[in-house]
Amino acid sequence: MKLLTLTAFLSALLLAGAARAGTPALLPSWNDSPAKQAIVDFVSRAVKPGGDDFIPPAERIAVFDNDGTLWSEQPMYTQMFFTLDRIRALAPLHPEWREQEPFASVLRGDIAGALAGGVKSAFALVLAAHAGMTEDEFARIARDWFVTARHPETGRLFTDMAYQPMLEVMDYLRDNSFSVHIVSGGGGDLIRAFAEKTYGVPPENIIGSSLKTEWSDTAGEAQVFRTAEIDAINDGPAKPLAIQRDIGRRPVMAFGNSDGDLQMLQLTASGPRPGLAILIHHTDGEREWAYDRQSRTGRLDKALDEAMAKGWVVVDIAKDWNAVFGAGSN
Amino acid sequence: MKLLTLTAFLSALLLAGAARAGTPALLPSWNDSPAKQAIVDFVSRAVKPGGDDFIPPAERIAVFDNDGTLWSEQPMYTQMFFTLDRIRALAPLHPEWREQEPFASVLRGDIAGALAGGVKSAFALVLAAHAGMTEDEFARIARDWFVTARHPETGRLFTDMAYQPMLEVMDYLRDNSFSVHIVSGGGGDLIRAFAEKTYGVPPENIIGSSLKTEWSDTAGEAQVFRTAEIDAINDGPAKPLAIQRDIGRRPVMAFGNSDGDLQMLQLTASGPRPGLAILIHHTDGEREWAYDRQSRTGRLDKALDEAMAKGWVVVDIAKDWNAVFGAGSN
Repeated sequence: MKLLTLTAFLSALLLAGAARAGTPALLPSWNDSPAKQAIVDFVSRAVKPGGDDFIPPAERIAVFDNDGTLWSEQPMYTQMFFTLDRIRALAPLHPEWREQEPFASVLRGDIAGALAGGVKSAFALVLAAHAGMTEDEFARIARDWFVTARHPETGRLFTDMAYQPMLEVMDYLRDNSFSVHIVSGGGGDLIRAFAEKTYGVPPENIIGSSLKTEWSDTAGEAQVFRTAEIDAINDGPAKPLAIQRDIGRRPVMAFGNSDGDLQMLQLTASGPRPGLAILIHHTDGEREWAYDRQSRTGRLDKALDEAMAKGWVVVDIAKDWNAVFGAGSN
Repeated sequence: MKLLTLTAFLSALLLAGAARAGTPALLPSWNDSPAKQAIVDFVSRAVKPGGDDFIPPAERIAVFDNDGTLWSEQPMYTQMFFTLDRIRALAPLHPEWREQEPFASVLRGDIAGALAGGVKSAFALVLAAHAGMTEDEFARIARDWFVTARHPETGRLFTDMAYQPMLEVMDYLRDNSFSVHIVSGGGGDLIRAFAEKTYGVPPENIIGSSLKTEWSDTAGEAQVFRTAEIDAINDGPAKPLAIQRDIGRRPVMAFGNSDGDLQMLQLTASGPRPGLAILIHHTDGEREWAYDRQSRTGRLDKALDEAMAKGWVVVDIAKDWNAVFGAGSN
């Protein structure tokens, strides 16, 4: 009996070890809270063959906002940091910028002053940084920038400002045959420069804001040229419309963090087969930034009210995530 | 020796049988011609690890025009047949159409008369048939139509007017980890109603012409509403621009059949890693329709000249395909 007990004990130990080694914990950066449970429950029901809530793999469309949902967006959007760096890099080609706002302020290092003109100033800077080149050239510039550009407050590469718990959610969904799409208010081509490597999301699964483009086929060299004119700002109600146009199906899961995601969440939570709508609420001023109703960037007000009223999942970063960022590349 | 010889002979027979059963012929509806060889060569080189022409799976984007490339487009686009059927179905709700062109001609059965007004008349009909409903409603209407609608000359279901050799190409490409996309001048949502079942192409891989849409969230029922205003006509230079916006990569293979596909083929054949551009030339008046430079629908003129000049693959249906249509559903 003693021998048998010892054997059983050793076997149990071995089995537990194997389980630990072979089956990593599900969503390890998430605490065992109702938010995590809601996500796991939804996915488990979606993939259960014959279950009432089974969703055929082809219909398992999950959409994610980017800024503030997949990576941080404070103190300002990463795209704005990219923009300012481009303005500085292009300045030698534009001597007139020394006298011309909002460029002059940027070159003096007065970012607040540069942006004091509001949306109009920001657009002027963004257009100067993003337009007037081919798509191939822009892709190269953007990819190069992400190799070295760092967040001024954390010192981390911007691509290391991705939220570890969200990387785990995207992997978990793909492991369960969900198709993961990004639907962002940011420029789609800038996201494409890093999303495949950082998020595992390929270019064709990214919808973002866009510039008008022109076709050019001079000397047999076909190129798509980026003009300095906005084509679409992919925010608010534009998100569900773009989802319909480009994906052509109602998503079954949607993740957002601001009022700009409200309609995308409504689209997902509504319809013949209501999907799961999830809001990331930035509550953690220690490990990240705490902001919601009063924030200029990523304001979360109406969508928070609607989430409360409709029982959507609200992720409280301080309580629900045991890690915010991953180890990082260096 | 005799026994051994017999055994060897029987083994060889068995092996040959197994090969026949286990390894179906590649692209069986294609004759062994240079066109087939060019496609097979390109794919074989693309998937050969370590080869000079290896293409990483994520970059294996293949784009296909739809009308005249994946299914027939004569004597007029399938979308026009759908449109006329919808006008007839909606007529009881629109008594004014009895007096109003181009509707009155359609209802009298005078299609040529209805279309005599050119693009303007055609658009009026298309808008009346496609707009004024939610995306969910349109999807239902379109799916229902394809279940029973038949081509007036062949009597086949429209979905059985798909070209068998092209179905084989799409399967062959997917088997080799290519991602297959449709980039059509036709309405994207109409294609989505049948493409997954007929072509194996999911809604998110379809780019087509589109209507402007509006967001509606009345009584908590979120819907995308189709307005009677054209958003984009996805033809000619618009194709490469839409590919850049929605797919975000230069395709490595492109299939088209008309001048409306020229720029998409140029985009694919150009660039840092020239891809394979393929034109389907409608040369078979017996089994299908023969047309090119003078055709109103699917005119192939400039693109044919460019294909000749640049050595693109030109598929001669009469010579290169041993079957045009499949067995069909009934």
